[in-house]
Amino acid sequence: MTPHADSLPDHNTLLLVRQVIAPYIHRTPILTCKTIDGMTGAQLYFKCENFQKVGAFKYRGATNAVLSLTKEDLRFGVATHSSGNHAQALALAARIHGAKAYIVMPKNAPQIKINAVADYGGEIIFCEPTLQARESSLAQVIARTGAHEIHPYNDYRIIAGQATAAAELLESCEHLDSIVVPVGGGGLLSGTILSVRYFSKKVSVYGAEPQMANDAWQSFQTKEFVPSMNPDTLADGLRTSLGSLNFPIIMDGVEDILTSTEEGIIIAMKMIWERMKIIVEPSAAVPLAALMENPGRFSGKKLGVILSGGNVDLQQLPFRSLKFKVES
Amino acid sequence: MTPHADSLPDHNTLLLVRQVIAPYIHRTPILTCKTIDGMTGAQLYFKCENFQKVGAFKYRGATNAVLSLTKEDLRFGVATHSSGNHAQALALAARIHGAKAYIVMPKNAPQIKINAVADYGGEIIFCEPTLQARESSLAQVIARTGAHEIHPYNDYRIIAGQATAAAELLESCEHLDSIVVPVGGGGLLSGTILSVRYFSKKVSVYGAEPQMANDAWQSFQTKEFVPSMNPDTLADGLRTSLGSLNFPIIMDGVEDILTSTEEGIIIAMKMIWERMKIIVEPSAAVPLAALMENPGRFSGKKLGVILSGGNVDLQQLPFRSLKFKVES
Repeated sequence: MTPHADSLPDHNTLLLVRQVIAPYIHRTPILTCKTIDGMTGAQLYFKCENFQKVGAFKYRGATNAVLSLTKEDLRFGVATHSSGNHAQALALAARIHGAKAYIVMPKNAPQIKINAVADYGGEIIFCEPTLQARESSLAQVIARTGAHEIHPYNDYRIIAGQATAAAELLESCEHLDSIVVPVGGGGLLSGTILSVRYFSKKVSVYGAEPQMANDAWQSFQTKEFVPSMNPDTLADGLRTSLGSLNFPIIMDGVEDILTSTEEGIIIAMKMIWERMKIIVEPSAAVPLAALMENPGRFSGKKLGVILSGGNVDLQQLPFRSLKFKVES
Repeated sequence: MTPHADSLPDHNTLLLVRQVIAPYIHRTPILTCKTIDGMTGAQLYFKCENFQKVGAFKYRGATNAVLSLTKEDLRFGVATHSSGNHAQALALAARIHGAKAYIVMPKNAPQIKINAVADYGGEIIFCEPTLQARESSLAQVIARTGAHEIHPYNDYRIIAGQATAAAELLESCEHLDSIVVPVGGGGLLSGTILSVRYFSKKVSVYGAEPQMANDAWQSFQTKEFVPSMNPDTLADGLRTSLGSLNFPIIMDGVEDILTSTEEGIIIAMKMIWERMKIIVEPSAAVPLAALMENPGRFSGKKLGVILSGGNVDLQQLPFRSLKFKVES
């Protein structure tokens, strides 16, 4: 059991979390691309969490959360409501440590996501596609099973786990000026801020989010929590509101929140696919999109960029919507 | 100038070629994937030439060919007819070494390939889309410019360059049983056979090609050269006939030629994209497709697989043609 369930992770906690989860996660590679550097005018170091287990950084936090439980806790399993990467991550992390994972999903979730959770051994409980139904279904599951809830981002154990991605990046790339990460609920961004605070104070941290889901940007501008209201963005991992634990960490430690257009997200995603030959999901392309839509601002800088995940439905790709001239 | 323009590369030549091209190429990573291992029953070591410069192993041979020329030769430039990865590879290799590259392409070549060659600085000469027109246009270009012809595969300098991919793989993975590579013109396959002959005799080498373009398989079965007749396969890199220099090396050294269906190629490509989060082109997926269509044959074996390239048109992907059941 790691000592960080109820309070803001401190320096020693993050060091311990890195050790505790290391045997179970991939230390993902950091890639560079001269063409993309040329197009942004910066030197970019891409931390490839798309190569993480289950294809997303979410496996770090889920693993840490599961490992924070006692054997007695684990007997009752873990539970969450999610239709995204956290659902898959928690299902696999629980299975690997011998626990059941109860995943509440809206009954209209894409079959590909339902299949993925089932493949990792998660027990799926379907509910109506409203937040209220998801929360009440989760409460019922927990009442019935005694399972331990693991929230996707509003949980210090999750934040500490996600922080390890930036900690590895800082260790591998010593001279970064800044790190840019996508922001949805804020688990990755708040974890990155903590890693920078403890391991490399001179690095600044930027969040990046779609203009169409710019609640974090609004929150940062107004210094007050602004919720996300059913945003319509391709970046399906970034549609949620900031968590109450994530919000103050972000307000205190983020340098700025950058935004990008929907077209910019597709262009950045296509550039990463074509030039780096790796698969990233739309949410993971948002930082590069934001950098390209803020030309000049990072000229000559060394930037770490966390490519947060690579889970896309290959039969539902967005590239055809681009208005590139293609003759044949 | 490297000493290997006119004769079969020997052991020392291949060692020298590795040294000569090393500063200009990427030593590409070798990736593994437990899920794909589980599905094939083998242990696969994927040599990621999709991460090579210009996105394909072709850059190795093109670089070696260009470096084999004298400064005097280079003044007149290099020339080839190709609409594939060799065209891009030769254009970039020539530019990096200060030479012009004249690339003869059929006038109906996809715009995306024309743009790629132009982006790498190649001078494109369009011709009618027949082999005869391509060859006569190339002859005219060479007569006019004095450029040095660099054939895509029927050239010992190219074979020696392509051989370096397998040489790196053998050096990194000491206990391989076999290496499986795609076969089109035979440059990569004949180079792989030479690297195995000189650096690790106990490894067997397999070629893999589409059933729809099984001229190498027919040649191997009949022990006589069988040409490729306008084959209709998605694997656009594997439509050509074996070269006259490649043919005897392959007949002498290949263990077997495996084939795969068109649907198998799409399934294998999708598996690599989804599970490994990397982009490979259809030709590069043919070895895995052939392995999956020969279940049991390689059970428990350690296999090197060269992922030959990653150049695909993201607006023309084949996944929608798969008849997977997708509910929503």
